[in-house]
Amino acid sequence: VPDPIITLITDFGESSHYVAAMKGVILAINPAVRIVDLSHRIPPQDIRHADYFLAGAIPYFPVGVIHVVVVDPGVGTERSLLYVELGGHRLLLPDNGCWTTLAARVGAVPLVRRLSEQRFWLEPVSKTFHGRDILAPAAAHLSTGIDPALLGSPAKEWSVLEMPQPRVTARSICGEVLSVDDFGNLITNIPAGMVESRPDQVRVRGRALKDFLWTETYGKGWPGQAVVLTSSVGNLEVAIAQGSAAERFKAKAGTRISLHYKPRARPGGKFMYRP
Amino acid sequence: VPDPIITLITDFGESSHYVAAMKGVILAINPAVRIVDLSHRIPPQDIRHADYFLAGAIPYFPVGVIHVVVVDPGVGTERSLLYVELGGHRLLLPDNGCWTTLAARVGAVPLVRRLSEQRFWLEPVSKTFHGRDILAPAAAHLSTGIDPALLGSPAKEWSVLEMPQPRVTARSICGEVLSVDDFGNLITNIPAGMVESRPDQVRVRGRALKDFLWTETYGKGWPGQAVVLTSSVGNLEVAIAQGSAAERFKAKAGTRISLHYKPRARPGGKFMYRP
Amino acid sequence: VPDPIITLITDFGESSHYVAAMKGVILAINPAVRIVDLSHRIPPQDIRHADYFLAGAIPYFPVGVIHVVVVDPGVGTERSLLYVELGGHRLLLPDNGCWTTLAARVGAVPLVRRLSEQRFWLEPVSKTFHGRDILAPAAAHLSTGIDPALLGSPAKEWSVLEMPQPRVTARSICGEVLSVDDFGNLITNIPAGMVESRPDQVRVRGRALKDFLWTETYGKGWPGQAVVLTSSVGNLEVAIAQGSAAERFKAKAGTRISLHYKPRARPGGKFMYRP
Repeated sequence: VPDPIITLITDFGESSHYVAAMKGVILAINPAVRIVDLSHRIPPQDIRHADYFLAGAIPYFPVGVIHVVVVDPGVGTERSLLYVELGGHRLLLPDNGCWTTLAARVGAVPLVRRLSEQRFWLEPVSKTFHGRDILAPAAAHLSTGIDPALLGSPAKEWSVLEMPQPRVTARSICGEVLSVDDFGNLITNIPAGMVESRPDQVRVRGRALKDFLWTETYGKGWPGQAVVLTSSVGNLEVAIAQGSAAERFKAKAGTRISLHYKPRARPGGKFMYRP
Repeated sequence: VPDPIITLITDFGESSHYVAAMKGVILAINPAVRIVDLSHRIPPQDIRHADYFLAGAIPYFPVGVIHVVVVDPGVGTERSLLYVELGGHRLLLPDNGCWTTLAARVGAVPLVRRLSEQRFWLEPVSKTFHGRDILAPAAAHLSTGIDPALLGSPAKEWSVLEMPQPRVTARSICGEVLSVDDFGNLITNIPAGMVESRPDQVRVRGRALKDFLWTETYGKGWPGQAVVLTSSVGNLEVAIAQGSAAERFKAKAGTRISLHYKPRARPGGKFMYRP
Repeated sequence: VPDPIITLITDFGESSHYVAAMKGVILAINPAVRIVDLSHRIPPQDIRHADYFLAGAIPYFPVGVIHVVVVDPGVGTERSLLYVELGGHRLLLPDNGCWTTLAARVGAVPLVRRLSEQRFWLEPVSKTFHGRDILAPAAAHLSTGIDPALLGSPAKEWSVLEMPQPRVTARSICGEVLSVDDFGNLITNIPAGMVESRPDQVRVRGRALKDFLWTETYGKGWPGQAVVLTSSVGNLEVAIAQGSAAERFKAKAGTRISLHYKPRARPGGKFMYRP
């Protein structure tokens, strides 16, 4: 049996000791754990970005792996910390809805517990760093094989994010940027399956893209050309070949992106949503 | 017995091959090592930041783990490289004082050796990259179980950082920013235990904060509000709820932060330092 | 036998789920793999930088380690994906020449295969993320001990980068910046062995450095002084002691750097290239 794995997803960045302290806490409780960094660059306190990240990453992991998520603007307030089991994936995270899209994608009934058993926590617990003082030690104890039921009682309710849905009319689909990646590519909330044919216009923040390429992949555009394609998570994406669309269009999460069809070139009566 | 662990703390960043080369050197000597990245984002050549980082991270690790620290503005000059054993924690680092606060926090008598045994080094040793050529191979050999005494002779003296201490008067405590984290939170050198009651004014670089919240945690402030609280390392911290205090106040390490009390509201005769 | 190691070198950055998804894919196929991050900060789509990175890092690793390189501006176009075996080092990467300098440095005859066996890939394969869908699963299968011959047929040709060579005259050596590291140090394409004596002038983008120190290491200069030295990879390097040469000179990859000798102080008839 390979050693247990704990992954870490945080918005801590790496210049401070926060991530390092969590790793120390985990290894002090279970020295056999293999720690795998998934990201410490979630934009600060951006729960929606964390939601997008988890949905794009967790389903690829083998079941049984323990994922610790610390994007936690509510630290120290009344919000709970949860243990979530979702189709075999195990997560420890604040109750802020950051696993909403993941849950929809995995499609299994979640088993949720509210962390309450302080014997699995560090002592004393600070008011500002529950990643180190509660989530990391709970994950480490879990990795030793304890029954998750020991962490706390089942929860019946939890926070769910309301995700912005694209608005569809006969001649347009209006969505927004869900996430900007490190290349500056703009991933929208428009599922590629919702789009039946090449639109006549693609607008970013209301302005039409010039000479955009409706294509399958970045490499097909000439350097600097706007390319509109299906992202690797299945959503519509706007990119600049060998450049940054985020810089070019000064776009960020929430920026409007819309597809427009001329009157006679209506996109077809059928709009199919393919999740 | 789990495989040995070597952690890495550097100011190398990640775009260049420096960290990667160190990992290769370690694994070539001991392929069983588990390498754990703690940070490669220590601000360049910032020994004080490294000192703050180590003090906040190393105490959480189990004893026996080997920590390699490469923040080394003096590389290639006469400065020594050290092996330090501190209450069971093992460190390999340049002799520049970056473990001063850690030593105070751990409170054990350090065993210090000066690295001199070249048979544990790479050959040839470059003048500019002792992390790869000396520290990494020494750590890897150590992880195979050799006696640390083989690395070099005991040292009686070593560099110690002089840390800026807060100045305390009857009506004020004047400190400075020790470290800025990736959220832009300002961690000061004022121990929370030194502050007995809410000050009437908190000044950053001489200017009083408006409407600041004297609180226990970030989540209590309204978005954009200045909050003054106890950091997870026990020092006074100035933050902006859901924002960056470093940006708002153009503050960085060394920026003055002071607490002021009105004449009749004197902070109490007793000033207690709680390390 | 220690668990197999797969290293990752990408230009993905860390805010998005790309790296995380690759790690999930690897661990789902072979849960025993130890994943080692080498860099996710290769400048976006910068094949030359990747080439420089690989040459400086891979030779230090023990043979047998599997290195996955995803710097792939041509993703989804006709470019192939390769398995390369080079003196025992094993690489999986796009056929874009990013291992040119590494091959020269290792000096062994490479065994190259073109990935074609789809049973080792994820299904379906996206058009934009072959790192997740082809390279990661191929690496994971390889780590379980399968014969590399199963991945695809031998290749006879592959892309090779043309590297800019320094131009040498009787009184000058004109090169360029090959790479800028995170300190802002400028590593040139001028091999230190090509330079026999201290030049009278060092020019960056045609402008002569004032008061530069011709030295062996950074620590010898006063803070802010330009220092010219041999980098840890054996090339000439221009740095600012305790500062950033990239910022000071607004230099980047490709910026001209040249050495000049006065008429009577000719650099000697012999120019030796020491790779």
